[in-house]
Amino acid sequence: MTIDPPGPLLIQGCDVLVVPESGDVTVRTAQDIRIDDGLITAITPTGQLVPDGVEILDGHGLLATPGLVNGHTHSPMVLFRGAAEDVPVHDWFNKRVWPMESNLTDRDVYYGALLACAEMISSGVTTFVDHYFTPHEIAEAVAESGIRADIAPTYFSSQGRDALEATVAFAEQWHGGAGGRVSVSMGPHAPYTVNDDDLTLLADHARRLGIGVHLHASENVQQAESSLARRGVTPIEVLQQTGILDAGVMIAHGCGILPRDYDMLAAHADRIAVASCPKVYLKHALWPLTPIRDLLGLGVTVAAGTDGAAGHNTLDVWEALRLVAETQKLETRDAMFLSVSDTLRLAMRGGAAAARLGPGAGALEPGQRADIALVDLSGMRHRPLHDPRAALVYGVQTHDVKSTVVAGRVLMRNRQLLTVDVPGLLAEIDSRAGRLVDLSSGASVQFYDP
Amino acid sequence: MTIDPPGPLLIQGCDVLVVPESGDVTVRTAQDIRIDDGLITAITPTGQLVPDGVEILDGHGLLATPGLVNGHTHSPMVLFRGAAEDVPVHDWFNKRVWPMESNLTDRDVYYGALLACAEMISSGVTTFVDHYFTPHEIAEAVAESGIRADIAPTYFSSQGRDALEATVAFAEQWHGGAGGRVSVSMGPHAPYTVNDDDLTLLADHARRLGIGVHLHASENVQQAESSLARRGVTPIEVLQQTGILDAGVMIAHGCGILPRDYDMLAAHADRIAVASCPKVYLKHALWPLTPIRDLLGLGVTVAAGTDGAAGHNTLDVWEALRLVAETQKLETRDAMFLSVSDTLRLAMRGGAAAARLGPGAGALEPGQRADIALVDLSGMRHRPLHDPRAALVYGVQTHDVKSTVVAGRVLMRNRQLLTVDVPGLLAEIDSRAGRLVDLSSGASVQFYDP
Repeated sequence: MTIDPPGPLLIQGCDVLVVPESGDVTVRTAQDIRIDDGLITAITPTGQLVPDGVEILDGHGLLATPGLVNGHTHSPMVLFRGAAEDVPVHDWFNKRVWPMESNLTDRDVYYGALLACAEMISSGVTTFVDHYFTPHEIAEAVAESGIRADIAPTYFSSQGRDALEATVAFAEQWHGGAGGRVSVSMGPHAPYTVNDDDLTLLADHARRLGIGVHLHASENVQQAESSLARRGVTPIEVLQQTGILDAGVMIAHGCGILPRDYDMLAAHADRIAVASCPKVYLKHALWPLTPIRDLLGLGVTVAAGTDGAAGHNTLDVWEALRLVAETQKLETRDAMFLSVSDTLRLAMRGGAAAARLGPGAGALEPGQRADIALVDLSGMRHRPLHDPRAALVYGVQTHDVKSTVVAGRVLMRNRQLLTVDVPGLLAEIDSRAGRLVDLSSGASVQFYDP
Repeated sequence: MTIDPPGPLLIQGCDVLVVPESGDVTVRTAQDIRIDDGLITAITPTGQLVPDGVEILDGHGLLATPGLVNGHTHSPMVLFRGAAEDVPVHDWFNKRVWPMESNLTDRDVYYGALLACAEMISSGVTTFVDHYFTPHEIAEAVAESGIRADIAPTYFSSQGRDALEATVAFAEQWHGGAGGRVSVSMGPHAPYTVNDDDLTLLADHARRLGIGVHLHASENVQQAESSLARRGVTPIEVLQQTGILDAGVMIAHGCGILPRDYDMLAAHADRIAVASCPKVYLKHALWPLTPIRDLLGLGVTVAAGTDGAAGHNTLDVWEALRLVAETQKLETRDAMFLSVSDTLRLAMRGGAAAARLGPGAGALEPGQRADIALVDLSGMRHRPLHDPRAALVYGVQTHDVKSTVVAGRVLMRNRQLLTVDVPGLLAEIDSRAGRLVDLSSGASVQFYDP
């Protein structure tokens, strides 16, 4: 079940955030944005476009920004938020998350994904790059809620070849679905849980289908060192050898990417993205962080993500991009690195590229998808508003996002969600919550020993 | 001008966050909180206390927490938020902040402080530990707005002895003022801007008046090394030699506190607090961070602060305490350090101790000051609510705080501020904003060369 295509839309009187490919981000004041068939068709000074029966969204006093992209997440894991605190990464997986995940039914995943979609819409996220089990349920939630997503069906080699083929069948069914709002990437979990034969096979399928691969690799330096000790190659070298780099890949985390990996990454830079999710690195006390300055220097796309809410607690991409800027300044010991302009560009253009949205995506320009957040910077915590870009990076919170548009459809208007029955959904969530965190069965979906 | 003392108040039907001196923080559900003369007089299961004409604040569905304490800030610097981004600390002081501060009039400081008070009330901050010029204006804003503050009048030795005496006169006038909501600490800026004679004199005054000292010291390791190179002692040794440690001191930042300082700090631990403000350390790429684990081990009080909004962008103490937990896990490479319970205890009990609020402060118990935030955790981004403590540390945002009570007076009710005319205030702020960031005069209040 998906929703009908929207009619034309006019956002009136808003300011517009201009995010160029390089140089300073700027603000163009008092504009109208015209949208037809899900695409931006014109951005002009307000009043020039005469409404001709189109739907109107009042943008006066609001700043229109490219919709945020959550560069890496596991959307249904909102079901576990707050249930795995204050543990190191091994215990997080083996004592909390993978046992809890063994409790999940398909319907749990559906409701979890729908809650994630609602939460993201409510904070101006218009696209998310997802990686999880039971992908059909996630695709249904995306289709219904109106958001956009690239969905990678998670695969472990321990599940067997039939499960691999099922992920391929999902891609064949859903890539380009929901009016083009759903795309699919192949989703091997990681080189430490998927063997080289399966990686090679999934890379081949990705090339055949013209889609990407999304996986965890070199998540931390311990994983890279473990891979070198066990098999003499880094995880990135495994991706090279199995054809994953050639197929095109979204690498989650990459904190353990080593200088010996750089030439391989540079050679495939036009088809590689890395998503950095610093809140979870901080909470799990993992150092170093994603080497973003080096990756950008190699020409690799970098995006900001939340990872799942079992680590990040929320799916707040404003918080994620803020932490990317803050932690990268610290990591590089350079307060001038990732300026407010460069941070917004990374999150918006980098995020859109990581989601494979095509050339020029992540900016509000005619011809681009109409994925837009309308942000209110008039609140006390932003005043005086010396620099709206700084307010976006260092001050904005969920409640400042007043309306969200995806593919030209208004999904939230003045903080009212229009496609999700939030009270009904929360009742469903609450009815499932206790069972999900019950560890008495002793089961687990996997064992973490990278 | 201050506001009248409030009458009795009953907060009905709320859950209550219990923050013990040690051990797990817990939640007691469905309680009434009775308040008389600004103090909590009873906390009992809801319905047992029959309202007898008292003011009622509906707490159903809300979690009552101890009001947050901003452990170190410069409240009027909200006037400069967003105007000093992407610069290292030397340029931040010498090219941006200290030149901008030369533009400030007394009325600017008043309106800036009032905006800061309003912003903090709106996010559940009930006390702030302030350090700034023109302290009378800040005290007036505190008196009028109903919040609580410890105000240290900033002093540089370059201002001369008359200015020092003026800060002492301010303490004599205002300590205990506004119905006890204002306390004063002596405010030498730092050992690198105040000479030893003046530090000694201010420590003597603090002892004479029974108040504390609040200053910046060992803000970063470069300062400690510079002090050792220039004069052979650390900044903490200077505080020891000038009697500041003996008088009792709130040290801002302390990231450059060295192991050689530990014995001195331990010997005065009952009268020393350190406020950590990690957002500004990240933005200024300063490492290492405040050595919180070692300080707690010495028995020193540690609090969370925002520093001024020219660095932190907002005065959001939820964000500050979240970053304290996240960055300390990373700093110690220990995901189990600063658990959600320990983080809440640090921010609430540690903050109250840093503000010199007396034994047991920072917890909701009969006999304590009625400084309370009512937090709504029913929103999508907190659901399912497996652990409200984790939601407080890792998820809460300003808008989740529905009501704020200070000294038994409701200052915000269901997100409406009752003591500050926000639209009028913002108009005043906007009329001043342009002049404040004009650097054409070439003046500066000081030069940073610690």
